[in-house]
Amino acid sequence: MPQFLNTADSDFEARFTDLLGAKREDSPEVDDVVAGIIADVRARGDAAVLELTAKFDRLQLTAETLAFSPEQIAAECAKVSSADRAALELAADRIRAYHTRQLPTDESWTDDTGATLGWRWTPVSAAGLYVPGGLASYPSSVLMNAIPAKVAGVARLAIAVPTPDGVANPLVLLAAQLSGVDTIYRIGGAQAIAALAYGTETVAPVDKITGPGNAFVAAAKRRVFGKVGIDMIAGPSEILVIADADNDPEFLALDLLSQAEHDESAQSLLITTDAAFGKAVAAEVDAQLQVLERRAIAGASWRDNGAVITVRDLDEAAALSNRIAPEHLELCVADPDALAAKCTHAGAIFLGQYTPEAVGDYVGGPNHVLPTARSARFSSGLSVLDFMKRTTMARMTPGALKAIGPAVETLAASESLQAHGLSVTARLRKLNAE
Amino acid sequence: MPQFLNTADSDFEARFTDLLGAKREDSPEVDDVVAGIIADVRARGDAAVLELTAKFDRLQLTAETLAFSPEQIAAECAKVSSADRAALELAADRIRAYHTRQLPTDESWTDDTGATLGWRWTPVSAAGLYVPGGLASYPSSVLMNAIPAKVAGVARLAIAVPTPDGVANPLVLLAAQLSGVDTIYRIGGAQAIAALAYGTETVAPVDKITGPGNAFVAAAKRRVFGKVGIDMIAGPSEILVIADADNDPEFLALDLLSQAEHDESAQSLLITTDAAFGKAVAAEVDAQLQVLERRAIAGASWRDNGAVITVRDLDEAAALSNRIAPEHLELCVADPDALAAKCTHAGAIFLGQYTPEAVGDYVGGPNHVLPTARSARFSSGLSVLDFMKRTTMARMTPGALKAIGPAVETLAASESLQAHGLSVTARLRKLNAE
Repeated sequence: MPQFLNTADSDFEARFTDLLGAKREDSPEVDDVVAGIIADVRARGDAAVLELTAKFDRLQLTAETLAFSPEQIAAECAKVSSADRAALELAADRIRAYHTRQLPTDESWTDDTGATLGWRWTPVSAAGLYVPGGLASYPSSVLMNAIPAKVAGVARLAIAVPTPDGVANPLVLLAAQLSGVDTIYRIGGAQAIAALAYGTETVAPVDKITGPGNAFVAAAKRRVFGKVGIDMIAGPSEILVIADADNDPEFLALDLLSQAEHDESAQSLLITTDAAFGKAVAAEVDAQLQVLERRAIAGASWRDNGAVITVRDLDEAAALSNRIAPEHLELCVADPDALAAKCTHAGAIFLGQYTPEAVGDYVGGPNHVLPTARSARFSSGLSVLDFMKRTTMARMTPGALKAIGPAVETLAASESLQAHGLSVTARLRKLNAE
Repeated sequence: MPQFLNTADSDFEARFTDLLGAKREDSPEVDDVVAGIIADVRARGDAAVLELTAKFDRLQLTAETLAFSPEQIAAECAKVSSADRAALELAADRIRAYHTRQLPTDESWTDDTGATLGWRWTPVSAAGLYVPGGLASYPSSVLMNAIPAKVAGVARLAIAVPTPDGVANPLVLLAAQLSGVDTIYRIGGAQAIAALAYGTETVAPVDKITGPGNAFVAAAKRRVFGKVGIDMIAGPSEILVIADADNDPEFLALDLLSQAEHDESAQSLLITTDAAFGKAVAAEVDAQLQVLERRAIAGASWRDNGAVITVRDLDEAAALSNRIAPEHLELCVADPDALAAKCTHAGAIFLGQYTPEAVGDYVGGPNHVLPTARSARFSSGLSVLDFMKRTTMARMTPGALKAIGPAVETLAASESLQAHGLSVTARLRKLNAE
């Protein structure tokens, strides 16, 4: 049974604040373990990575078999059905088309002093994508991480994916191939992040690491941040559906469950203007939970973290949504565009009743790597820009330096940075002597 | 005496690798201390912040005096000379003009299935800017952090600046006022970062924290990352000057010293095609060091971290520059644009002999908060985008869902995410029944 809240109730604010603040994920004390693993990989390179892979994945590799060979990749990809391949290709094409539009433009202009200013975007040289192993080894995540990197122009793209007990996911390998990935290392955990960040004899270091992972992977990404770029520390998935009564309860129940089935820590929230409709959706969730394959996970998520919130009107819904800053926001109302304009903090917005969030997970085109845990307040989903960086450019003419140089001298003096000022003074002296 | 390297020497690669890998900053064991401070501020709020301020800044504040009052700000600003004020205003205007051009555009389009896709940018609601106290309390940094935030549309902008022994920097307060900062807290260190991230009775929490700081501030930013957004972990400043022999050695010596005078850990590098010219610049550095106010700091930086590297040609210079990925890159050569095209990893590029790096620190227009410690390989200087986030948008029509929904069903099945597939199946069933 999820929580039922109503903004008209006197205890609403307290209960909503609790809901927002509730910690949905275990924080095991992994940081020390991860620090040790990273130090080990830095000190011993391949040897450490191979030992840790034997220990955690029960898989004996060598430097030669750390990466899948082209033959292994081809053999695994051949196992994929033509229907699965076609669906992956459609997804890849649509994701590529969407992300190609994100490519930024360089700018250059000359201002009234004659100075030329601007900026230039360039891709990072090498990126590493982490892909979890086991149950959460999703080919769609490979597409969502690798395609933006390739669109950005990243020259070398590596994947790290653990293969516990030696079992690979053919769809992950095919997704990598469709995305143009260069190398697939069959390693995981903090040891994979350390190897990608610092390099080993076999693993070439990269400049940027993206992709989801468990608590060990997250802690490792946090630790290597600075040495390399990272995308974000991803938390459990979330969906907020805002709906009026003019919706099919089954549709919304399945949308709520499509997040809940990811993880017991996932959170599915419904905000509705109609309390009876909220009850109807909750009843439909219960009905679906009787038969859903992942009903244990989805049921626990819905029971522990789910909520149905009744509001007076859609303005109130938007205000609550902005406090939640949901990863996924579905707007199933008569005028979703009008409501979207008021929902300013969200990773992705799905407009109207025919846009289930699952479309966005796979083939919609936008990225499914999105900010969780209220971080849509300050961050964005993965994009082409995550694999690029901007260099600012400035060129002064003698006239421009004469115009603005004196202000540099003044400000440098005020900050007691004498050489800063002198670097302008020496040039102005020469220019004024000419 | 800096190092002198030459790519023609047999030991060049080893020495250059050492230069790249040299750790230029002490890493005191601050992390445990910082963890304790953050926990204390979260647990005790204002009381902890006030105690820590009394301890570290020797300043007794109360909840009422934690922020400067409008009267205090006005009184401090009145101390600023008109020349300093005019220079700050020129800088603010030029920084605002440059950053206004960075404002991103929203996009929306309809694809061949009838799906409407796109994205929308919105500002973060509240940002906190850290400004160091004491010697490194730079008004220019206030402008460089606050103006992009205001241009982005951030509604609430707070500064935290410690005032050791109660001494404020009038120029910092004026820069804050010119930038439109709402609140100035006179607190610093990890306690300021914790207060901004988590809030206290007096300090309202923010969504994004930017700005430079010492090792404690950096460790605190790293720890609150995720709860709030942060800009980057800034390291010591760096400059790389690439010059041919057709330059005034005095200009370049002063440019190298303008980084060296920041910090003993700063690094100033010269790459030149002419070994004799390199010696001439080094001699000029030595001459300037005789009289420079901050000669102790600048001298130590130049001696311990400086280097003059002679190369065969500018292509070799560009290749080395890309391995260094300098924060600041000055190109003092006949055709700086041609060389810039080859220098793909740099925070900011300064083109030609009349563009000393100091112009970029103050009034050029581009931001002076730039990636250090080789992180220009994967990150960019501060910009308006750091204070905004992008929400992706998708709207399916019935026709669009019929076109791409089956691929969702296929991929969801392949990932064993049944509810994902059913959320599409239920809708397609209804549409096909109509």
